[in-house]
Amino acid sequence: MQGAVLYGPRDVRFEERPAPTIVEPTDVIIRLSATCICGSDLWPYRGANPITEPTPMGHEYCGIVEDVGRGVTSIKKGQFVIGSFFASDNTCPHCQFGYHTSCQHRALVGGAQAPLLRVPLADGTLVATHDIPAADVIPSLLALSDVMGTGWFAADAANVKPGATVAVVGDGAVGLLGVLAAKQMGAERIIAMSRHESRQKLAREFGATDVVTERGEDGVARIKELTKGVGADSVLECVGTQQSMAQAIGATRPGGSIGYVGVPHGVELDGADLFFRHVRLHGGPAPVRRYLPDLIDRVLKGQINPGKVFDQTLPLHQVAEGYRAMDERRAIKTLLHP
Amino acid sequence: MQGAVLYGPRDVRFEERPAPTIVEPTDVIIRLSATCICGSDLWPYRGANPITEPTPMGHEYCGIVEDVGRGVTSIKKGQFVIGSFFASDNTCPHCQFGYHTSCQHRALVGGAQAPLLRVPLADGTLVATHDIPAADVIPSLLALSDVMGTGWFAADAANVKPGATVAVVGDGAVGLLGVLAAKQMGAERIIAMSRHESRQKLAREFGATDVVTERGEDGVARIKELTKGVGADSVLECVGTQQSMAQAIGATRPGGSIGYVGVPHGVELDGADLFFRHVRLHGGPAPVRRYLPDLIDRVLKGQINPGKVFDQTLPLHQVAEGYRAMDERRAIKTLLHP
Repeated sequence: MQGAVLYGPRDVRFEERPAPTIVEPTDVIIRLSATCICGSDLWPYRGANPITEPTPMGHEYCGIVEDVGRGVTSIKKGQFVIGSFFASDNTCPHCQFGYHTSCQHRALVGGAQAPLLRVPLADGTLVATHDIPAADVIPSLLALSDVMGTGWFAADAANVKPGATVAVVGDGAVGLLGVLAAKQMGAERIIAMSRHESRQKLAREFGATDVVTERGEDGVARIKELTKGVGADSVLECVGTQQSMAQAIGATRPGGSIGYVGVPHGVELDGADLFFRHVRLHGGPAPVRRYLPDLIDRVLKGQINPGKVFDQTLPLHQVAEGYRAMDERRAIKTLLHP
Repeated sequence: MQGAVLYGPRDVRFEERPAPTIVEPTDVIIRLSATCICGSDLWPYRGANPITEPTPMGHEYCGIVEDVGRGVTSIKKGQFVIGSFFASDNTCPHCQFGYHTSCQHRALVGGAQAPLLRVPLADGTLVATHDIPAADVIPSLLALSDVMGTGWFAADAANVKPGATVAVVGDGAVGLLGVLAAKQMGAERIIAMSRHESRQKLAREFGATDVVTERGEDGVARIKELTKGVGADSVLECVGTQQSMAQAIGATRPGGSIGYVGVPHGVELDGADLFFRHVRLHGGPAPVRRYLPDLIDRVLKGQINPGKVFDQTLPLHQVAEGYRAMDERRAIKTLLHP
């Protein structure tokens, strides 16, 4: 089969790779209905993470089970399934506590920008739909595999409550779906920080009530102004840089919460500053598996349509163009058809 | 009157100071029934915070209202009152959100190691008891002014829930009262980290089920061992150093919470480390005022006896010996009789 492999900064190639096979008895092989490029794929693409060897890319997936290991009990051949970017057993203490991405047996799922994918710990990792879903909901179901679950976790970690005032730092796909999550959780006011018209538009469609175009200290000042000097109850940090984190911390009211899901790159936090600001901080790799049953239900009932973040759709063999478009911010998120 | 004044590292003097008077109409003057030395007083005493001018010390207090500003409406002359180390209006958005120590009009209360004390924003800051309390509960009521409220906040910020496994880093008075708070909140297992016999004893009396004497990485390993490799649900960080914070973070399970109330001195946090550990972090100057009515009630009903942390009682004029005893860890906490 052919799939996407990253060789170095801005060097992603669509090339022949061995098709995956069952390795462990708890594995399954999925034929992907759709896959996509993640904002976090841009970190290595841009050279922020070193690439030591050619790396098959992609970790967002949904599709039809094609082969099943002999130790798999609940997942069946022919089912439509969605899973997280981290495989998890769903039974260890961390999974039972809701933190599947810290599963004691977790394993990264990789190489999903391809027609076929091996998923370890299939029973714990995958959630099957009752029926094979219609083509038009595939993008939204695919989004649950990471980006929607991550936006949801950002809002959850930021303790978004009904009636809350929420600020969202970052207008990438995760930030936009953080807006959607906050809206679903009953936030009354949702302030999206964005300076890109198409993203502002989608943010408003997802439930943003205000848009702030200023960044850094000016952005914080604007949030304070909009909240009568108080700050936001909940702030979603969906970027992962020192500046975006400072912006999130500055925008939060004392006693308010920051949910941070942008993978931190070089972020240092001053303990005394956090202390005197009285903010709550929680984040990490989103435990997507925890949210999957609920989010699948919301998609299939038509309550949410997170697939709207895909504003570019390409055949898989044009994956390199997808990376370029996202890198240059011409596309919010690129869906790939194998 | 005579009170304690800090001149420089390890140089605290009991000397003549002007008696406080009403400055703002919202002030009251209290005649102190008892006062004490705080663990945080040791930071400047040890030279960790610079002292630019002779500084009247003390911020924990309870006593009888002696004079009342003309703008004070709820607090009356002759009442027994307790207040927080930060004066607060109890009406601003931050107070209403429960974060009185971030009050928009907050003012530090200082100079309480003296017979008389001026308390600003008296209506918002002070809580009066129904009757004048008996002498034997004065130490426990005094403890509510800071140390018990701070231990309570540590447990609250660490989301201690019934049945939880809790670890407490720091065996000072705040840590010990953090144990007591966790017990009151229904924690099932409370692991006190302490290597001092008298403090271990008090920790067990307050509800600790286990004592860990190891520190640093060994301490973390021991907590992991005691929790079957999982880590504690809630960890109370009651010291404020880089090492104690690292110990707290390492002892927390993924998805678990750290409540930190030790004033951070030189604490730097690595954003990526916190991210991948999945821990929750919340702390700051304890909003003691929020907890006062409930805690006064628990003391007067005999449910808690936080005054037990005072293992040294001195007349106020021997305040310098109190600082020495606490600095040398001969005393957990020193109560002073004006």
